[in-house]
Amino acid sequence: MRPQVGTNLPKVGNYNQNVVLDTIRSLGATSRVELADRTGLTAQTISVIVRRLLSDGLVREDGAQPSVGPSGGGKPRTTLRVEPTAGYAVGIHFDPGNISAVLVDLSGRIISTAEYEIHDELQPEDAAALMGRAARKVIRDGRIPPKRVLGVGLACPGPIDQDLGLVLFPPRLAGWGQVPLESLLQESTGYPVTIDNDATAAAIGERWSGLARDIGGFAYIYMGTGIGGGLYLNNQVYRGSFRNAAEIGHITVVPGGPECYCGNRGCLEAVACPAAMVAEAHDLLERGGESTLAKAYRRDPALVDHPALCAAADEGDPLARTVVDRVARQLADVAVGIANMLDIELIVLGGPALGPVGEVYRAAVAEALESRPIARRIHQTRVSLSPAARDAGAIGAASLVFHRSFAPQLAVLLSR
Amino acid sequence: MRPQVGTNLPKVGNYNQNVVLDTIRSLGATSRVELADRTGLTAQTISVIVRRLLSDGLVREDGAQPSVGPSGGGKPRTTLRVEPTAGYAVGIHFDPGNISAVLVDLSGRIISTAEYEIHDELQPEDAAALMGRAARKVIRDGRIPPKRVLGVGLACPGPIDQDLGLVLFPPRLAGWGQVPLESLLQESTGYPVTIDNDATAAAIGERWSGLARDIGGFAYIYMGTGIGGGLYLNNQVYRGSFRNAAEIGHITVVPGGPECYCGNRGCLEAVACPAAMVAEAHDLLERGGESTLAKAYRRDPALVDHPALCAAADEGDPLARTVVDRVARQLADVAVGIANMLDIELIVLGGPALGPVGEVYRAAVAEALESRPIARRIHQTRVSLSPAARDAGAIGAASLVFHRSFAPQLAVLLSR
Repeated sequence: MRPQVGTNLPKVGNYNQNVVLDTIRSLGATSRVELADRTGLTAQTISVIVRRLLSDGLVREDGAQPSVGPSGGGKPRTTLRVEPTAGYAVGIHFDPGNISAVLVDLSGRIISTAEYEIHDELQPEDAAALMGRAARKVIRDGRIPPKRVLGVGLACPGPIDQDLGLVLFPPRLAGWGQVPLESLLQESTGYPVTIDNDATAAAIGERWSGLARDIGGFAYIYMGTGIGGGLYLNNQVYRGSFRNAAEIGHITVVPGGPECYCGNRGCLEAVACPAAMVAEAHDLLERGGESTLAKAYRRDPALVDHPALCAAADEGDPLARTVVDRVARQLADVAVGIANMLDIELIVLGGPALGPVGEVYRAAVAEALESRPIARRIHQTRVSLSPAARDAGAIGAASLVFHRSFAPQLAVLLSR
Repeated sequence: MRPQVGTNLPKVGNYNQNVVLDTIRSLGATSRVELADRTGLTAQTISVIVRRLLSDGLVREDGAQPSVGPSGGGKPRTTLRVEPTAGYAVGIHFDPGNISAVLVDLSGRIISTAEYEIHDELQPEDAAALMGRAARKVIRDGRIPPKRVLGVGLACPGPIDQDLGLVLFPPRLAGWGQVPLESLLQESTGYPVTIDNDATAAAIGERWSGLARDIGGFAYIYMGTGIGGGLYLNNQVYRGSFRNAAEIGHITVVPGGPECYCGNRGCLEAVACPAAMVAEAHDLLERGGESTLAKAYRRDPALVDHPALCAAADEGDPLARTVVDRVARQLADVAVGIANMLDIELIVLGGPALGPVGEVYRAAVAEALESRPIARRIHQTRVSLSPAARDAGAIGAASLVFHRSFAPQLAVLLSR
């Protein structure tokens, strides 16, 4: 657990500066007056901090505009924005099956991308070398000064030891055990590396430059090979007492249901991950269910995989829709539980396994959130599909770099 | 939602002082050296803050003791403790059926108590008058200087508007609507009043002087007429973006199950509150289930109420145990979900409806937490029964006063 510690003036100065930068980022464009109003800092403090941000090149000032509002023709205000070219980050998403990389600027815009397929026998050193290659490629393709790259962010599935920079037993990569991927990648790229699990990285990406720019409390449900989660509570990434929070995939949705590898039964992941959906579809086909997939299944059951299932559901195939609608109902149950438990503003659905049926899931969750949480009459928890979709992991990985450098983090304000 | 704001020097000074006081409280007895170590503050800052706490009478210093440890006969250390008589608080628990009051000292020790039965026709003004009477009685019985009473805390079931001091539609009190109980009680007692829902108050009480003194992340499951919850995350009460978090009773445990008044189906509260347990027992008895309760049920079904059911279960009656074990399993499912979602250190079970079967619930939750959360090999989430039991609400209510005055609150550090 994080002990309860005090703070001091230098930490407060740094925290306040990051609050100002983060407020400029979240508003897109703003003024010193609005910043003082939003952050509660005095006009003088804002003025000092903005001067520093301008001289560091992190923020730029647009020409003066005539001020609007009731007071009319007062002193003209200038508009402050984050300077997108002030810094860049490489984001690498390491997923079973492939490695994808993006270069993004400080505003979160994608500059260049790269993707490599990987095989299950890939060894850690080779993986790090491949990631290094991907990083160099996106920097080269981005035609930006390499010195402006602030670092490399790496998003991985499954558990991570952040203190030690270890990836722990990634799925489908036999014999990996505990791999010091952070230091391997640091060596291979020459940049500082920040590592996190893909669901948390996706949440940080959504906050930095996506749907949740201005949202203090939200949950990210990441649908990949498994189902992961990320949480922002009170404007901070919530990691839990031992950094294992937001295991949304392991909330029970079928009490006493099928065993999950985690030790629990009837977990969302155990019944709603792509493999479980495919298994149910195969079972229904085996039992003679009518479906456009029946022919493919008879020819070769492996042809009815998760993409085929989702595509069929999207085209209205009833058997495929049975499976997708069942998953949608279970996602809705989990979403209502999260809303009742955490009273957040937004739930984001993202990740590669949403496929073409993301909208079916979104609609089911939206309907549940409108009608079932106990506080729905006081405020509604909204739900949205991440616009990042397939790139959510890599964009999130890049955001890890900006988050570490620029987010106002209580864990830093209140650290030894 | 709480916007992201900066902070300033006076707020930091106040925060640091409260961190020091809170650390002394949580450790019971400590030294300046240990305080510096725990809080990360410099020896000089600790020295200044402790001097102020001593001169304010909030902390007392025991005679110097020879220092122990590897350095041997260094400078003798003195021991710092919270001064229990420095301040008192009245806690009032307003529950369907009765009003109970306690006077506690700053260490959380109960000095005196009072209890009044109330009827469902009680009107708000009469309730406030009765609470005022209860407050005066516990202060008089406590034989302490009334000036040392820092305030009155009030714990109520159900939703509360803390900003406005309103109790919203309390259960079983027809026609109450939105009642300004905070100001009514302030008038009636002459003390400042702090109001919160009973589950959150119980969590704050557990943190102030109970099982969770030194726990940064825990959940309180409050079993009363309904099932409520309280959350501490990262050493702070977690209230959610709109102050409606921790509705643990409204997590789904029977997907598609019976309707709950909240709008959801199969909520923990809907199937595991006392009324639901009694309904199931009646149903089983109706169907001829063998039980020591059968005779009482035939004579008058109302005799088989929740206390009778729990007492029978406690004595091993199989029909009653069927009901209690089913509730225990559902509590265990919710506990595993909380552990996976929030990665906390402790779950506390408390509240009047635990009755004599609290241990059955505790054991089922403990077994689930040992075997099912995904991070159980990294750390275990423990479970404990609140020692406050029936008084959890009133003790929690009193702690609201201390919490408001002395807890290091980020919501204050980071406020306008």
